[in-house]
Amino acid sequence: MSERIHQQLAFLNEADKLKSVVRGTTLNDATRRENSAEHSWHIALYALVMAEHAERPVNVDRVIKMLLLHDLVEIDAGDIPIHSAAARDVAAQAAIEQAAADRIFALLPADQADACRALWDEFEAAETDDAIFAKSIDRVQPVIANLESGGGSWRDFNVTVEHLETRVGIKVRRGAPAIWEALSARINVWFSTNT
Amino acid sequence: MSERIHQQLAFLNEADKLKSVVRGTTLNDATRRENSAEHSWHIALYALVMAEHAERPVNVDRVIKMLLLHDLVEIDAGDIPIHSAAARDVAAQAAIEQAAADRIFALLPADQADACRALWDEFEAAETDDAIFAKSIDRVQPVIANLESGGGSWRDFNVTVEHLETRVGIKVRRGAPAIWEALSARINVWFSTNT
Repeated sequence: MSERIHQQLAFLNEADKLKSVVRGTTLNDATRRENSAEHSWHIALYALVMAEHAERPVNVDRVIKMLLLHDLVEIDAGDIPIHSAAARDVAAQAAIEQAAADRIFALLPADQADACRALWDEFEAAETDDAIFAKSIDRVQPVIANLESGGGSWRDFNVTVEHLETRVGIKVRRGAPAIWEALSARINVWFSTNT
Repeated sequence: MSERIHQQLAFLNEADKLKSVVRGTTLNDATRRENSAEHSWHIALYALVMAEHAERPVNVDRVIKMLLLHDLVEIDAGDIPIHSAAARDVAAQAAIEQAAADRIFALLPADQADACRALWDEFEAAETDDAIFAKSIDRVQPVIANLESGGGSWRDFNVTVEHLETRVGIKVRRGAPAIWEALSARINVWFSTNT
């Protein structure tokens, strides 16, 4: 038993490093950039509250677990802001993240490593209803943060409304169209005023 | 639908402020104090991985939801380090947290406000198996952070091993005795060497 607990703690201690992975997006009050650990908490809370807006019915408990786990690979791979030039090399980033998943989930006892890796793979593949909705929620929160903070990473990367639609809107619409629709007026006002 | 989404977003935007509530505990690498949002993520992950060590069977999905919600009241009430002098005025702190729960959960649509408040009340009451385990996990993570960081808030507040047992150990043992047992050797070494 104790050996198993120490394996689990090795994983949880590794996970602590996600608190030091800084994202492109700031807090809503723009005082600093958020990190991937607090982002993961926030989007799990988003899922808890907004699962009813999923395009197709989801198991919110599975969605929350996916979102708690989904960014752990950034401990090795870093966060690549979606609007940055680096985000364009999708294949290279995917290979780094796969290697990170191999390393980090393997810290767990084998049965849990397999279960967590399967959830992460499902999230990455974005084919199941749960994963599609989880991906939508992951994309929505930074949009809100940018609207609340006065532009945030949209200003940093000179994002246009067309770019936002292509990189973000399409994915949010796929899993949670009602949420994107509810935001569209604010988004259009911001981009027509600021770009 | 849109009105409901905007109520949910008002709650989620309020929740963003938890990222600015700083705790007594540091990151494992001691580079800075952690905030209550990233702490909430970390303990949700603890629950996901360690639910098998609960003293009595728990519904891990409910435990995770409790842990995602449990610290939101700190947006108004602040975090009171468990080893600090301020932690002794339990009644006053509880009244502030109740008022905070009244305000913050009421931002949600009424049905969700009731559901989230009920989970928070259950956590605070610490009577159900889910809540007892959730409280244990909330107390375990700072112990690990202190062990990993070289003492952390134990040094700051001149904590003794007897104080740790009374304030923390009893509560962890109640919900997850196997975890406390697995940590006891490391805890005893630290306190015998450093106090």
